[in-house]
Amino acid sequence: ATNIIKHYNITLLPGDGIGPEVISVAKDVLTLTGSQQGIKFRFEEMPIGGAAIDLTGVPLPEETLLSAKKSDAILLGAIGGYKWDNLEKHLKPETGLLQIREGLGVFANLRPATVLPQLVDSSTLKKEVAEGVDLMVVRELTGGIYFGKPRGFGKNDKGEDIGFNTEVYATYEIDRIARVAFETARKRRGKLCSVDKANVLEASMLWRKRVTMLASEYPDITLTHMYVDNAAMQLVRDPKQFDTILTNNIFGDILSDEASMITGSIGMLPSASISESGPGLFEPIHGSAPDIAGQDKANPLATILSVAMLLRYALQEENAARIIENAVLDTLNKGFRTGDIFSIGKCKIYKEEEKVSNKMAS
Amino acid sequence: ATNIIKHYNITLLPGDGIGPEVISVAKDVLTLTGSQQGIKFRFEEMPIGGAAIDLTGVPLPEETLLSAKKSDAILLGAIGGYKWDNLEKHLKPETGLLQIREGLGVFANLRPATVLPQLVDSSTLKKEVAEGVDLMVVRELTGGIYFGKPRGFGKNDKGEDIGFNTEVYATYEIDRIARVAFETARKRRGKLCSVDKANVLEASMLWRKRVTMLASEYPDITLTHMYVDNAAMQLVRDPKQFDTILTNNIFGDILSDEASMITGSIGMLPSASISESGPGLFEPIHGSAPDIAGQDKANPLATILSVAMLLRYALQEENAARIIENAVLDTLNKGFRTGDIFSIGKCKIYKEEEKVSNKMAS
Ligand SMILES: CC(C)[C@H](C(=O)O)[C@@H](O)C(=O)O
Ligand SMILES: CC(C)[C@H](C(=O)O)[C@@H](O)C(=O)O
Repeated sequence: ATNIIKHYNITLLPGDGIGPEVISVAKDVLTLTGSQQGIKFRFEEMPIGGAAIDLTGVPLPEETLLSAKKSDAILLGAIGGYKWDNLEKHLKPETGLLQIREGLGVFANLRPATVLPQLVDSSTLKKEVAEGVDLMVVRELTGGIYFGKPRGFGKNDKGEDIGFNTEVYATYEIDRIARVAFETARKRRGKLCSVDKANVLEASMLWRKRVTMLASEYPDITLTHMYVDNAAMQLVRDPKQFDTILTNNIFGDILSDEASMITGSIGMLPSASISESGPGLFEPIHGSAPDIAGQDKANPLATILSVAMLLRYALQEENAARIIENAVLDTLNKGFRTGDIFSIGKCKIYKEEEKVSNKMAS
Repeated sequence: ATNIIKHYNITLLPGDGIGPEVISVAKDVLTLTGSQQGIKFRFEEMPIGGAAIDLTGVPLPEETLLSAKKSDAILLGAIGGYKWDNLEKHLKPETGLLQIREGLGVFANLRPATVLPQLVDSSTLKKEVAEGVDLMVVRELTGGIYFGKPRGFGKNDKGEDIGFNTEVYATYEIDRIARVAFETARKRRGKLCSVDKANVLEASMLWRKRVTMLASEYPDITLTHMYVDNAAMQLVRDPKQFDTILTNNIFGDILSDEASMITGSIGMLPSASISESGPGLFEPIHGSAPDIAGQDKANPLATILSVAMLLRYALQEENAARIIENAVLDTLNKGFRTGDIFSIGKCKIYKEEEKVSNKMAS
């Protein structure tokens, strides 16, 4: 028998759509890996998103945030669905996600996009373009236009209705996310590409200036800068040119989704959101896919790989993380596939195609 | 001999890098087509961008804007280059471009992305994904975060340096670009997808509300909405799902570049920028590509196709536009290629690969 030597508290946030299914698999994976590695997990399952709206009237109940803050790490499934699409902003599932990011102060969002040799055919890109892609988007997650004030609705000089938001970055916000990106690049291939729109936006000019200044502290890292429109092109033209990409909240939202689709296996991609000192938030990057929820069609691998990130980044349990990542590769090597990564003649189990179009609902 | 019956004034803005080369070809094309169609063009060549900085100290001299305003249409080459990269913002070549857009009030930017059967191999996407792509991005060009105030640098409550910009849209700005998009979709396949980030941004919520309201005036158009992160994915996953895309200035900047790269032939893609009543601005969407400037390697077809758009949208010379478009197809059918769209075994003339990576400098 294994001696249980370590205890961790994990807050599970199943959320909506396929969230509960994938979280339930991930919980089993954590428990099993833990039992082999002398780790015991205490799970607390809390509502968020649409599920929380139905239960409590708000997308992020206070108890959920409290449980998350007290935990060692948080694992989130997915949020959102057609049902809650027409609610007011402060009652939308998405608002719960933004509130927990802000509440936990998870300013650094790490989104790897890797094309596994086993899955290169799933990409819509030509094999020679897709194979070997291995990049990491480091997205600023608690600043910029997502949270900037002033924001809202009003009137302009001419009395017309306007809607407005503020893109704003302070030096400390840029510096701390840039440091995460430099450190990330250091653990990878030493190349960092900072993406901005410094030819137009003042917020981007300050961004570029600070990132450039910090580079002198990381002489081993090769830093380049790219405009966001060009980056959106280059990801399609030659995604292999990228190692680590550093960018702001809104550009990171767009580019990380684009990068994930380039791998062709969005059902495979995990993410980690890290704070300065509190617990991190780990989640698959796919959405809640309400159209396939409850049908046992969802690919649980993105969430299982998020568990690996949780073990690595939040708990420093590198061994356990590796075991899980290897088990995922093993499963793929044996030819098991869900519908989203299925390709004829190469796979054992066929499940109806998962509609990524429902990313919209997340 | 042909009787000259119509006269048009065209302001030519060669700009920087490969700009002068492609404009010189386009001028010949206009003159020749005009002589066959009973049209005489008077050209006025004016400086903009880096060329204007070198000549006059500013990126958009008053005389250039005056000439443009008096003309029937403006044809622009490209602006920007390494040489001017470190100038202050108000002296950057890009600022000249933004100023002329604002000065002319060209709020509607039409960017087609079409995969020609002759060039399907140039795309990095698999043939079955790329072939048949034929979409049009309608980008708002004189509003949003590009021009919104307040903007600049300052301090926050804690005395830290900040850089900030304002994303703002007024109802009339949304309405007029939405109308252009509905009309564009009507002339195409009747499908309009409006792209925003209405799950996070108030400016997008107003956008979605107005576009939805206007839809009742266009019952023949099928309107859908998509979040920008999802749109960035869907362009890679299945670009054929799109007909006309309507979006704001910054999202349009990113998505139109991504769409252009999906066609694999950014050296082929024209654009039109239209105002409420004044002259329109026509330009290839590729940048100034300073690394190949002056070497006779640049693909002039994007500019030649911009001339076709100029004839169609600014001068209502549909015949002349068609003649030019057919001549382009004819040239491709004969197997002539520049390096950027060259593929072995299918082409007659090989020119060294044009580095699109220099889009950055534009
Ligand atoms: C659901 C939405 C608010 C969220 C975001 O825009 O950050 C999502 O797209 C993501 O990327 O995690
Ligand atoms: C050069 C730059 C200011 C410009 C823009 O961002 O609009 C360019 O990228 C474009 O798309 O025409």
